[in-house]
Amino acid sequence: MSVTTPAGFEAAGIIRGLKSTGARDLALVVNRGPRSSAAAVFTSNRCKANPVLWSEKALLDGAVSAVILNSGGANCYTGSFGFQTTHLTAEAVAESLGVSAGDVVVCSTGLIGTGDQAFRDKVVGGVPEVVAALSADGGTDAALAIMTTDTKAKQSVIVGDGWSIGGMAKGAGMLAPGLATMLVVITTDADIPSTGLDAALREATRVTFDRLDSDGCMSTNDTVTLMASGASGITPEPAEFSAALTALCQDLSLQLQADAEGASHDITITVVNAESEDDGVAVARAVSRSNLFKAAIFGNDPNWGRVLAAVGTTDASFDPYDIDVTINDVKICKAGEPFESRDLIDLTPRAVSVIIDLHFGDATATIWTNDLTHEYVHENSAYAS
Amino acid sequence: MSVTTPAGFEAAGIIRGLKSTGARDLALVVNRGPRSSAAAVFTSNRCKANPVLWSEKALLDGAVSAVILNSGGANCYTGSFGFQTTHLTAEAVAESLGVSAGDVVVCSTGLIGTGDQAFRDKVVGGVPEVVAALSADGGTDAALAIMTTDTKAKQSVIVGDGWSIGGMAKGAGMLAPGLATMLVVITTDADIPSTGLDAALREATRVTFDRLDSDGCMSTNDTVTLMASGASGITPEPAEFSAALTALCQDLSLQLQADAEGASHDITITVVNAESEDDGVAVARAVSRSNLFKAAIFGNDPNWGRVLAAVGTTDASFDPYDIDVTINDVKICKAGEPFESRDLIDLTPRAVSVIIDLHFGDATATIWTNDLTHEYVHENSAYAS
Repeated sequence: MSVTTPAGFEAAGIIRGLKSTGARDLALVVNRGPRSSAAAVFTSNRCKANPVLWSEKALLDGAVSAVILNSGGANCYTGSFGFQTTHLTAEAVAESLGVSAGDVVVCSTGLIGTGDQAFRDKVVGGVPEVVAALSADGGTDAALAIMTTDTKAKQSVIVGDGWSIGGMAKGAGMLAPGLATMLVVITTDADIPSTGLDAALREATRVTFDRLDSDGCMSTNDTVTLMASGASGITPEPAEFSAALTALCQDLSLQLQADAEGASHDITITVVNAESEDDGVAVARAVSRSNLFKAAIFGNDPNWGRVLAAVGTTDASFDPYDIDVTINDVKICKAGEPFESRDLIDLTPRAVSVIIDLHFGDATATIWTNDLTHEYVHENSAYAS
Repeated sequence: MSVTTPAGFEAAGIIRGLKSTGARDLALVVNRGPRSSAAAVFTSNRCKANPVLWSEKALLDGAVSAVILNSGGANCYTGSFGFQTTHLTAEAVAESLGVSAGDVVVCSTGLIGTGDQAFRDKVVGGVPEVVAALSADGGTDAALAIMTTDTKAKQSVIVGDGWSIGGMAKGAGMLAPGLATMLVVITTDADIPSTGLDAALREATRVTFDRLDSDGCMSTNDTVTLMASGASGITPEPAEFSAALTALCQDLSLQLQADAEGASHDITITVVNAESEDDGVAVARAVSRSNLFKAAIFGNDPNWGRVLAAVGTTDASFDPYDIDVTINDVKICKAGEPFESRDLIDLTPRAVSVIIDLHFGDATATIWTNDLTHEYVHENSAYAS
């Protein structure tokens, strides 16, 4: 049930004192082969952390032997010293494993601006220990070590016919995409070259992690890495593998939504009958970023006016006065006028469904978001993260 | 000190039971001439309220004799019945004043979806009473009658050489622009044709109301109407009038910022050395819409990493690793690295200054915003508005 479920992978998660809580904070996932093909997607934020700058280069040859990840510091906006820390980290992992440093992906998460000498000592100095802790049962320790304000580890496994995919993810705040949204490591023992992995990963993230928009804030460190060991000796059909990978990414995305900072509702915003999928995404994302709508849902108020006010800020194709809004199966607005009674809507359950019918085509798109709560404000004001 | 300060204007504000609080809720501002030239800007939200649909047409000939405004209901998404209510309102005002209905601007504010028969009865039925209450001292009553969650009336006056400008505004939530941001009525006794008013108003709102982005939510009802009576008989130089109008709009904008729903900080985000003013606006606006940044300021946390993470989501011209961030006069980040100590920054005062130096040109732009607070969440979740 982890990244070590697929054959050919080992992992570990240890305590290095990066987190003030004393919890696990340094993780390593290693691909023992025989293949080392890989693909990755990174944040589209132009302000990228040092590990992202490093890892983008590491992926150029489509080969990755290991991913090392730390929580407790983002190593972003830490200058050339910070980049050198990332480089030293990759070299230390490479030396311990007998691989090339250019095949080591580095991921960091935590406070932006954190990456001083103490940080370097804890991460680079911890490499021998985390390598020594590697085990074929180490997936869950690794998943625990990448948590920040996450309250639980996120893991998922999809089992194919003789092959499998495993994944782990972290992400609680700064949950809005560009490409990826968080730190994710996915492993598979299927025998697939990097080009096949890349195509499948881009398709999967486009409709999963990219559709999660919890708080509209795009992180500087997001990385999703997919590694294939080929240890199963099986090459699944591309469509079959792609479907399994997408299912795994969706499962992890929904786990991230369910554990978003301070949230009390998981909101699924679905736009139907849009002229294009892009239009549907634009409309659903605009609603997902309306603080007024999100605060209303927190207050169990089916405020459809705030939905339409957000829809109207987009340049999607629609007639503003021919839009239906359905909240938790009650069509509260039809053709831009009040329809069924708001009293029919029960917003006390955590899951909320909002369906926006644009009556302008046949495309559909979904964005997953959360409500805006006192707890979100508290978590993000009461401490630097 | 109100819209009735300039010669040639009368106003009134009365109680019609639209607000559950029993406060004034129907306002009228009348231009007694001799001129009736006017200009207006409206929300760029494509989901426009019925009064906006009506008033856009009323402005086509550049003549406005009166503006009638109600709080306690937005008359938005209320269908053809709602549009007819707006039409009937304008006709009732026109009949009472002996002017054309096409020269009457109608503005509404309150809950979207509110505009039933009871609403119509209170607004249309109140026209004789509000006309009877008109007075050359009625400006403040009108300013009180357009308040919703505003805690105080917003008024401003600029006095020129023999002429003056007066203004009133409301706006507390849904405070983000497209063109306008709220309901505003501005009067002047200067003798200026509608084309001159239009040019001056567009320039003034572009750098004032359009730069106020309290909560990123764009309203469906925003209208800024400027009426000139010509009663002073003086035609000021265009540059002089434009400067005075801009100063008045800025004063009203800052009053709106200071009274934004639930806010505990007024944040001025200034981008300097941008390649273009548009780049500066894009960067400042992205930061103003980062919930994580806004929650940090609420918590008195000078979290510059969240500033840069927001900057990186824009497509403005900059080198991500050559940006300085100064918060309350302390340069906490220089060239993308930590610089002066965060301990030097005192965020306890309500006014917060954030200066972002892009080192990429010589353009400057400012956005005014607020922090994200428990009170904002409370106000926008605890009741339908």
